[in-house]
Amino acid sequence: MTLTSSVLAGDRLALTRLLSLVENDATEGRAALAELFSHTGKAHLIGVTGAPGTGKSSLVNQLTLHFRRQDKKRVAIVAVDPSSPFTGGAVLGDRVRMRDLAGDPDVFIRSMASRGSLGGLAQATASVVQVFDAAGYDIVMIETVGAGQGEVDIARLAHTTLVVEAPGLGDDIQAIKAGILEIADLLVVNKADRPGVENTEKALKSMLELAHPTQRVFKHHGTYMKADIPGTTQSDKMMWIPSVHRTVSTEGTGIPEVAESIAKHLAYLRQSGDWTARERSRLEVELEALIREALMSRFREDVPAKRYDEILERVIQRNLSPWEAVNTLLDPHRESKRSK
Amino acid sequence: MTLTSSVLAGDRLALTRLLSLVENDATEGRAALAELFSHTGKAHLIGVTGAPGTGKSSLVNQLTLHFRRQDKKRVAIVAVDPSSPFTGGAVLGDRVRMRDLAGDPDVFIRSMASRGSLGGLAQATASVVQVFDAAGYDIVMIETVGAGQGEVDIARLAHTTLVVEAPGLGDDIQAIKAGILEIADLLVVNKADRPGVENTEKALKSMLELAHPTQRVFKHHGTYMKADIPGTTQSDKMMWIPSVHRTVSTEGTGIPEVAESIAKHLAYLRQSGDWTARERSRLEVELEALIREALMSRFREDVPAKRYDEILERVIQRNLSPWEAVNTLLDPHRESKRSK
Repeated sequence: MTLTSSVLAGDRLALTRLLSLVENDATEGRAALAELFSHTGKAHLIGVTGAPGTGKSSLVNQLTLHFRRQDKKRVAIVAVDPSSPFTGGAVLGDRVRMRDLAGDPDVFIRSMASRGSLGGLAQATASVVQVFDAAGYDIVMIETVGAGQGEVDIARLAHTTLVVEAPGLGDDIQAIKAGILEIADLLVVNKADRPGVENTEKALKSMLELAHPTQRVFKHHGTYMKADIPGTTQSDKMMWIPSVHRTVSTEGTGIPEVAESIAKHLAYLRQSGDWTARERSRLEVELEALIREALMSRFREDVPAKRYDEILERVIQRNLSPWEAVNTLLDPHRESKRSK
Repeated sequence: MTLTSSVLAGDRLALTRLLSLVENDATEGRAALAELFSHTGKAHLIGVTGAPGTGKSSLVNQLTLHFRRQDKKRVAIVAVDPSSPFTGGAVLGDRVRMRDLAGDPDVFIRSMASRGSLGGLAQATASVVQVFDAAGYDIVMIETVGAGQGEVDIARLAHTTLVVEAPGLGDDIQAIKAGILEIADLLVVNKADRPGVENTEKALKSMLELAHPTQRVFKHHGTYMKADIPGTTQSDKMMWIPSVHRTVSTEGTGIPEVAESIAKHLAYLRQSGDWTARERSRLEVELEALIREALMSRFREDVPAKRYDEILERVIQRNLSPWEAVNTLLDPHRESKRSK
């Protein structure tokens, strides 16, 4: 039995092995991804992002427990930590999770640490998500630490994106909030038993008012219509207004409501055609990233390292501008002809 | 007089025009960058990063005032805001700055907003920094909002990197701190008149202990030696231990000490050879980014849009895996030969 057929048959050990191959971008992993690809496209990909300290991990845990108990869904969690490899944050997160979710054969948790560049991490995350999708997990939760543009890019892999906030994380975090409001389908104010929750919720709601119509709404729907009840869909002019929720994830408070809103969003995606639109843009981004990688590795094969270092040295010496260097490296024949 | 020679001659209006050309990646801007490149490599590039709410902008303002008054340096500030274009944060920052620095002909402030992707923003920032360098600014401060991996990548453009913290920004922001400790040359606890400053400083110092030896130290120096006084350089085994400072930037408190430590770091960079090493890695990263862009734009020229959309559609239909799609797109002849 091949590794991929074992994975498709539900073999957990084979899955673990394949994930490692795929994460490390091994040749065998790439071949397996190609084989598995026709089995993908079924899982509901849920992105969860937000600043450190908002309690994302425990929210993801509680949602996973809910999906398991109420909906009998198979759930995979991909915890992405773009911070330094030496933080050990990913490993710690795993341990905390163990207590609640350990031993459930229909839950799989995979932590991914930094691999030098955000681009590489986004690529590896996309591949790992594909494997879970093919392996028959109904829901794949993609959790990212941080709320920078790069983390937002990773969250964009998802069909449904949750942005998590918490009261009292600083007085002027508007810049980040505004940036991620664009990608939020659900806004969760976690740690809602803390002081300041009303202010945080009010700020989020008034920013939502300001932020609409967002570019994404315009792109997919053309028209903007303000719904009276956040989170509801309007069948005549389909559009989704991000819903705002309060949770205390350590106590499970508010989790059923968030899960219900996620289910509503999925229904909206299916009815509105937004599912297909998001699949398209997701795969388009992935294809482009792969093309970039392939072009670059061909370039490295074609251009001898010695030649590259020579040109780089001329740039460092300010004898050649970076743009001239690129042209020289990409058109070696043109230059050698000229110099004859 | 050409635009570049006007810029080299100190014409502020020409500089403004060139910055716009360069930011928008116009053909004329690229040509100008190539012309100006031989004039670069002199400015001291100082990166300032940290979470929103730490008071980075006012710290940058105060440092700029100090460099102007004490050292008579010409200073350019590049304020990079990777968050959404609709936040208007960049513009607001400009207004706040106006009061202190307006009217000084030897200060130039340029705000850069998001351009869709972090890669694009990093590239545009690098180009703008090059223009200021060529135009004779002694110091270019690169300020980024946020502290995600992407923002850290932008801060890496600098020779000297300041990481700004503030007391009371949340209880478990260790993940971010650990990640950026690697790139910090100076750590500044701003808003040091707030409660909790001792804890923040203590946490930073103990994390510094843990973080050393960092990879960068090993890479450039081979050996690790713990200095007793942070911020001092040891001429026998040159290495830099990040210094920790307290400031209240709104009142100017602690600014001279930070400026002094920046000057010490510059001296260290020159003596240790680290200046050259950082220049090399900076230009290497930039060259690679340009090669990627050039390869991708050639690919777009070579592959007809219709063909690309056809292949993408097959991926969306799960008839072709992304990897197979890349190979098909990159080797059209191989496939057409096979299909014959």
